[in-house]
Amino acid sequence: MREPKRIREIMEVPGRFQPGPLNSITDIPGVTVGQVTLTGGGANTGVTVIKQHQGNVFTERVPAAVYSGNGHTKAAGTLQIEELGELETYIAMTNTLSVPAAAEGLIRWQLADAAGLDLVSINACVMETNDCHVNDICAFHVKPGHVAEAIAAAGETVEEGAVGAGRGTMAFGLKAGIGTSSRVVRSKNTGEDRDFTVGVLLQANFGGVLNVYGRLMQPDKPLREYDLPRGSCSIAVATDAPMDPLQLRRLAKRAVIGMAMTGSPLYNTSGDIAIAFSAAPTVRRSYTDRRIHSIDALHNDRLDYFFEAVCEAAREAVYNSLTMAVPVGDAAVLEL
Amino acid sequence: MREPKRIREIMEVPGRFQPGPLNSITDIPGVTVGQVTLTGGGANTGVTVIKQHQGNVFTERVPAAVYSGNGHTKAAGTLQIEELGELETYIAMTNTLSVPAAAEGLIRWQLADAAGLDLVSINACVMETNDCHVNDICAFHVKPGHVAEAIAAAGETVEEGAVGAGRGTMAFGLKAGIGTSSRVVRSKNTGEDRDFTVGVLLQANFGGVLNVYGRLMQPDKPLREYDLPRGSCSIAVATDAPMDPLQLRRLAKRAVIGMAMTGSPLYNTSGDIAIAFSAAPTVRRSYTDRRIHSIDALHNDRLDYFFEAVCEAAREAVYNSLTMAVPVGDAAVLEL
Amino acid sequence: MREPKRIREIMEVPGRFQPGPLNSITDIPGVTVGQVTLTGGGANTGVTVIKQHQGNVFTERVPAAVYSGNGHTKAAGTLQIEELGELETYIAMTNTLSVPAAAEGLIRWQLADAAGLDLVSINACVMETNDCHVNDICAFHVKPGHVAEAIAAAGETVEEGAVGAGRGTMAFGLKAGIGTSSRVVRSKNTGEDRDFTVGVLLQANFGGVLNVYGRLMQPDKPLREYDLPRGSCSIAVATDAPMDPLQLRRLAKRAVIGMAMTGSPLYNTSGDIAIAFSAAPTVRRSYTDRRIHSIDALHNDRLDYFFEAVCEAAREAVYNSLTMAVPVGDAAVLEL
Amino acid sequence: MREPKRIREIMEVPGRFQPGPLNSITDIPGVTVGQVTLTGGGANTGVTVIKQHQGNVFTERVPAAVYSGNGHTKAAGTLQIEELGELETYIAMTNTLSVPAAAEGLIRWQLADAAGLDLVSINACVMETNDCHVNDICAFHVKPGHVAEAIAAAGETVEEGAVGAGRGTMAFGLKAGIGTSSRVVRSKNTGEDRDFTVGVLLQANFGGVLNVYGRLMQPDKPLREYDLPRGSCSIAVATDAPMDPLQLRRLAKRAVIGMAMTGSPLYNTSGDIAIAFSAAPTVRRSYTDRRIHSIDALHNDRLDYFFEAVCEAAREAVYNSLTMAVPVGDAAVLEL
Repeated sequence: MREPKRIREIMEVPGRFQPGPLNSITDIPGVTVGQVTLTGGGANTGVTVIKQHQGNVFTERVPAAVYSGNGHTKAAGTLQIEELGELETYIAMTNTLSVPAAAEGLIRWQLADAAGLDLVSINACVMETNDCHVNDICAFHVKPGHVAEAIAAAGETVEEGAVGAGRGTMAFGLKAGIGTSSRVVRSKNTGEDRDFTVGVLLQANFGGVLNVYGRLMQPDKPLREYDLPRGSCSIAVATDAPMDPLQLRRLAKRAVIGMAMTGSPLYNTSGDIAIAFSAAPTVRRSYTDRRIHSIDALHNDRLDYFFEAVCEAAREAVYNSLTMAVPVGDAAVLEL
Repeated sequence: MREPKRIREIMEVPGRFQPGPLNSITDIPGVTVGQVTLTGGGANTGVTVIKQHQGNVFTERVPAAVYSGNGHTKAAGTLQIEELGELETYIAMTNTLSVPAAAEGLIRWQLADAAGLDLVSINACVMETNDCHVNDICAFHVKPGHVAEAIAAAGETVEEGAVGAGRGTMAFGLKAGIGTSSRVVRSKNTGEDRDFTVGVLLQANFGGVLNVYGRLMQPDKPLREYDLPRGSCSIAVATDAPMDPLQLRRLAKRAVIGMAMTGSPLYNTSGDIAIAFSAAPTVRRSYTDRRIHSIDALHNDRLDYFFEAVCEAAREAVYNSLTMAVPVGDAAVLEL
Repeated sequence: MREPKRIREIMEVPGRFQPGPLNSITDIPGVTVGQVTLTGGGANTGVTVIKQHQGNVFTERVPAAVYSGNGHTKAAGTLQIEELGELETYIAMTNTLSVPAAAEGLIRWQLADAAGLDLVSINACVMETNDCHVNDICAFHVKPGHVAEAIAAAGETVEEGAVGAGRGTMAFGLKAGIGTSSRVVRSKNTGEDRDFTVGVLLQANFGGVLNVYGRLMQPDKPLREYDLPRGSCSIAVATDAPMDPLQLRRLAKRAVIGMAMTGSPLYNTSGDIAIAFSAAPTVRRSYTDRRIHSIDALHNDRLDYFFEAVCEAAREAVYNSLTMAVPVGDAAVLEL
Repeated sequence: MREPKRIREIMEVPGRFQPGPLNSITDIPGVTVGQVTLTGGGANTGVTVIKQHQGNVFTERVPAAVYSGNGHTKAAGTLQIEELGELETYIAMTNTLSVPAAAEGLIRWQLADAAGLDLVSINACVMETNDCHVNDICAFHVKPGHVAEAIAAAGETVEEGAVGAGRGTMAFGLKAGIGTSSRVVRSKNTGEDRDFTVGVLLQANFGGVLNVYGRLMQPDKPLREYDLPRGSCSIAVATDAPMDPLQLRRLAKRAVIGMAMTGSPLYNTSGDIAIAFSAAPTVRRSYTDRRIHSIDALHNDRLDYFFEAVCEAAREAVYNSLTMAVPVGDAAVLEL
């Protein structure tokens, strides 16, 4: 069997932007990722958590937005994110039927972390895809406590493939899972006085005819493919550029487009959504200090760089989710 | 203390439409409501379930839509309802932090009711408001099993006021709760060969300056009101007119407008949303038979009657939630 | 016949906020309004223009948003306003079939005002309602040049009633037209170090059963009303509070809600939309300087004041449009 | 110089669906296209009109929807299409600054074609892209009468490349223009008793790094590309499958995704939108007969075929717009 490798170790990756040092969503300063993987007893599932920063994300909120490419998803918390333009919990990913468990896990963790605040309302942000092909999903293996475990495990190193919320997911009929990637937007291009980074982490579990940078991997895939469950793709997008919620929604859309470029038309039963946030300290929102304050604003014309960069990163993250996967159950892995 | 009465028993209700026989969402044929009320040990909360029809709502789906008046809500299932234009579970209402419990309850109930289908994906539809003023919300009193109890209790009689998901809710600083109302759209007006009905059930828990059909009840309410939690209003709308999802979204919006007319500008932290569905058998969607089929379609120009009717019904439902409430904790009731 | 008076001269206006000095959208510093009224030869129509500030609105853009209460409208420019969150022309109002003429007028004016820029793309912002009841709308009386005339006529004094784009409009079956109103959000309430103002200008041309602060004016209005054209309501909202596009969209929605409170359920053929902008210099966007810059940001929790204030202002603006109207053609005026 | 050829004449086109007989939007029964091309005197522009069927499209309306991939567009009529889910004029495409002229042209044509109806409200549907690189756009060469000319010229044969609204447009820095393509969804796949077709016609005028089915044509394109105008892509989508507006919106989205797959991340200043309609006679809406009527409904699970098919068609249409183009001004053509 082939070794798990990132796509960049296997072939040249085209594009006009370079990845950050880790080629990961954790290249964005302050962003970390923690995962819990559940196996055995019919379980092949888990939880993946993205931390927007290392402070209290409820009291120091990041601007955020949701883009729904195809809304066949049970994601939790999206209406409030859209309305307020901000996150108030970490972002968790899990399997479809475990969204309630993960949401309760985020709520309980936040209550415990309330730091003296008398919290009574918490908008848990959870995304999901359906890992039922290799996971006994109706056994509800994920418990609220697994969220706290994933949070406790968070760090800058992101395991990819069949781990965390990606333990049981498949894409293009192959074993996939968690994938991540990043791109740097250089100051020499934008004319700003510093570089910025955009990063993507996704849980790949969708269908289509896979192409790897133009190489069609499944040219003769028959149309009866339609009769199988075709899953979803949940995407988290982070940047340290100072974007407002409207700009972040546009950024999130381009992550879905980059994912689609790997070979998916966003099928009817696929929950293909992206949640994007800015981790820039200069746009953060205090829960307790409600006075008018000064924030940084990015010009709309600068977005082009980020749109293209996130498109590249999302695409590479899908490939990483495939090439880093190990076989689980009867799910075969991609051989390039 | 005043007797709980419906607003219509207290005063003349203006409007151009008449209510149905029960003046309730259950005037729509097939629609029933079940509630579980939890009290004691700090609990003043519960679950309210609306059944769209008496068959299997997963395999015989109703067209549906969501309108978010102000999306400060943790409602579950909305992205998929918007994408597919249909419901696949009953609609449950509960308190803010119990959305995960209620969602899991709906999922487990649907799995048990699967009737031979190998279900692995279920989009639980849950709405919520925050009853923390008289309920110990952080104790998570609602359990998944309460949903099954509420479903089992469903019938055409709808208790109003401080029951079910309305046990602990307040509106305009007064005890409120569950309210319902309906309106009949007559064939002599529409020119159709039969009457139709539109019904509303809501969980009232919002702020503002209450006016009761033009009578300003709190004329001197000070602006410091803003410092209190102001809750939300979750609204279910049903009709037996054959509407498509686009039309239902427009109908849902008018329910929010009718609710706003009682005195609310839809405050920032209020989750004011409506989910509307058509219970007409002629627009139902089979889960198993995927062939092109024939459905009834309502002309857009006929919507005016329904828009005005649902506006009237939502408004009256808010008043009913207030006048039918009994005191709970230190929450006083409306005296007219 | 009764004298045209503003509603505040006729009766006490309830509410928790006070109007600004002019009780007009022009209470927002820098905002002016210009109108051209066309009569004779079958014409009863015109153009009303709102200037966001007195500089070049293309090169110094204001953040803006659109909310569509009911989208039966031919309004121009809305997709781009939603995407970028900003305006690049003045806001013009006219009649339904003259949107192209007004849009071309804005484009030609902006090209002439380009100040050395090589403009090739201009997003004209035009709203409309249908004045066909008293205007020979198919004669296309409005010409592009009328926009320039309206711009040239702009000032702080706003004529109301049957003038400009309101010359031929009707509401509730009565002669209506242009109405305006404003509200001040006091520093003592918000805790900010200064007062802010929110203002509304609208072109009232919609149906329903009129209530004037709770007094039902047309209690016996029959349902056959539905067979008449029911028009629309176009609303411009301005504030000097530093809001971002997401917040402005929420503000725009509350203007539509305030308008609905006068007695409209937003009928099927009514184009009820609002465009809101912030005239605060601290949130302006330069067309030429694309660097990251610092802007002011309002906390979401402060929005409650503005939501309630704009609701009050929109409601009063509708009443002003009615009480300030003079009879035109066979359209009678409101007698209070 | 190379001959204009369609991409299919040049290379093998991958995909799982076959085109219709004409590989054109006019493969959908009843759909025709007419174009007027303006050259000379600085003009390189025009008008392209898509007719949904050969009856009166105002009185026999087709269900329709808009999807905005990136809303930097001056498109007219979109709010009403979204609200009602239907078209009431033909679809016209032209250049950015000529939207008012084209809208007025559609209105005047519809008034003349009113067939005894007393029309006073018409929602003109116009899309645009900016052809300023080779067209003297500020000279306003397009007049309302050109729309009537394009309508009169409509037929099943669609000229591609530098014609009509595509006369002056460019994509990927190369001469592009109008492109069209179609796909057949076979009954043997869907299980329905007949085949359906989906067709696309687009006006290509956008930027990016062109890839032709995986072959990267501009691998070294520098990032300073960002400083040039990057145009837009306006897309019309037709099908004879009986879809409702919600389904059509989802179909429109996949056309934008297919277009993006040619190498575009939907840049900030690109107006990338699609308007989709169903030409199926079984879903048409009468303007005069408002009674409840029976229509055909497609099961959501059948959409997968159409999503993938329209993605393929949109992609091929972009390539056709490039390979069929002739040089105009200094704009070079694609050599494969």
